[in-house]
Amino acid sequence: MPTPQRIAVVGLGYVGLPLAVVLAHHFAVVGYDRDAGRVAELRDGGDRTGEVDSATLRATTMEITADAKAMAGADVFIVTVPTPVDANNEPDLTAVRGASRTIGGFIAKGAVVVFESTVYPGVTEDICGPEIAAASGLRCGEDFFLGYSPERINPGDREHTVDRITKVIAGQTPVVTEMLKELYGAVTSGGVFVARDIKTAEAAKVIENAQRDINIAFINEVTCIFHKIGISAHDVLDASMTKWNFLNFRPGLVGGHCIGVDPFYLAHRAKELGHEPEIILAGRRINDAMGGFVADEIARRLPSGRVLVLGITLRRTCPTCATPR
Amino acid sequence: MPTPQRIAVVGLGYVGLPLAVVLAHHFAVVGYDRDAGRVAELRDGGDRTGEVDSATLRATTMEITADAKAMAGADVFIVTVPTPVDANNEPDLTAVRGASRTIGGFIAKGAVVVFESTVYPGVTEDICGPEIAAASGLRCGEDFFLGYSPERINPGDREHTVDRITKVIAGQTPVVTEMLKELYGAVTSGGVFVARDIKTAEAAKVIENAQRDINIAFINEVTCIFHKIGISAHDVLDASMTKWNFLNFRPGLVGGHCIGVDPFYLAHRAKELGHEPEIILAGRRINDAMGGFVADEIARRLPSGRVLVLGITLRRTCPTCATPR
Repeated sequence: MPTPQRIAVVGLGYVGLPLAVVLAHHFAVVGYDRDAGRVAELRDGGDRTGEVDSATLRATTMEITADAKAMAGADVFIVTVPTPVDANNEPDLTAVRGASRTIGGFIAKGAVVVFESTVYPGVTEDICGPEIAAASGLRCGEDFFLGYSPERINPGDREHTVDRITKVIAGQTPVVTEMLKELYGAVTSGGVFVARDIKTAEAAKVIENAQRDINIAFINEVTCIFHKIGISAHDVLDASMTKWNFLNFRPGLVGGHCIGVDPFYLAHRAKELGHEPEIILAGRRINDAMGGFVADEIARRLPSGRVLVLGITLRRTCPTCATPR
Repeated sequence: MPTPQRIAVVGLGYVGLPLAVVLAHHFAVVGYDRDAGRVAELRDGGDRTGEVDSATLRATTMEITADAKAMAGADVFIVTVPTPVDANNEPDLTAVRGASRTIGGFIAKGAVVVFESTVYPGVTEDICGPEIAAASGLRCGEDFFLGYSPERINPGDREHTVDRITKVIAGQTPVVTEMLKELYGAVTSGGVFVARDIKTAEAAKVIENAQRDINIAFINEVTCIFHKIGISAHDVLDASMTKWNFLNFRPGLVGGHCIGVDPFYLAHRAKELGHEPEIILAGRRINDAMGGFVADEIARRLPSGRVLVLGITLRRTCPTCATPR
């Protein structure tokens, strides 16, 4: 498989934009977002997610467009669209399905479609591949090929950026994998890790955030227990932290696009397969209940008065996460 | 409170023995175990737990005895007896209650009783203190005093030994705390951490092992899910480990005296207080079920034949943990 000549990045949010910008240092890149407002903002040098600064954005050679037709002729498509949950905490695959169909409208024979969106194992091959095939009339694995490389963007984190982290990759065939090694190897100094297959790469991502979720949930659970005992979780954790292998998690709220969402993706697939995900869903219940616990405590201690909540965003530098779930 | 003149260590197992040996470098120590066989073995220079080597044991100045009366006149008692669970996974406090009553038979006014056994918050003050008071006729907090300092023995670990780790301590009064700082400060180069109070110190210990338990349980849960998906947990974890903050836990069985037991102590107290410990008990259920999962897989793949199980101990250097729960 030849070196990519033209890469289309589908979705220019806090994941796709910084990736497209660094790819454009090495390849011809077209960045597509269906939101014309976002495209106008980016063309004007502004990124409200704060991931890419204005000078870098103005200097980029990539084409930024809300016109899907501009992606025609790309030999690699990279999909970085949101994978949220719906009101029932079930995976909402509308965006990845939609992106797959859009790509299917333009994809040429021999092209590769790489997904970076966080999904449960099987979404790329069992859902996205067939969507592209149906929209294009091409055969998956013969006329076009799939890949998966989980995004590891930590919003607002200036240390673990896409050009420095290790990128996990997996291709549908060894030839695709080799091409992805070259592609991602060009943009990151952190190296490329080849996962055994696409489902393994999908699984690797979804457990990363689930692991953080259950660790925070454990600390939240013991915080509630200690509250009933009449001792401070902070005092207890200060003492536990003096053990050499205690893990430093603190009680608190879990929000944002990732940690509070990804475990439901894994849980969904587990339930489909008849395995009740006990600890994963216990973690979600506990963390989602912490807001109520904090609010109840405030109400109990401050029976009247108005409360000013400061810092409602997920983190200081992350305006995109300003809407709590 | 003066420097301790005579310290009695109650229980010479894998926790009490190494502690008593290092204390004897600085203080007059009597080591008591109610098991005459264990005492004979130790007097003969043998420690089947492998924590103290023969030369060290033969050189110790401490008195090793199965005669409780030898503890008379001690100004500090340190209790290092087992705190297991019963057949219903409820805390079995028989040994700490028994040790408390034994101490109550000899304790003199002004003495301090320190517990190192892992317990839920409240056991030292609400159960052990009253037992000692009842057996001695002395008043807790006036005639005698309580302390707590959780043991952190990691069986077979030659790096994190009692003379090198940070010891968490808490005394019933500031004067007791100062004495414990001096006592434990003399034996460890890892320093002493003063917890806010005895319940906080009890809580700090019990969550250390519970945290490990739920982390292993999470990995075990996803291992079972990946098994149904048809991918290898080891392949997935190899990929996840390339993320900078992924925690290195592996699927496996949980046994031994600590990780599989301590969470039930915390869960017991939580339930007494009306708080259902969701994630803690989910972790216990998952880890206790892993033996069956492994056995079922072996049976499925090897429908006939005999299986030789090697390495049935908790770990290579830990004969005391040879009996799986």
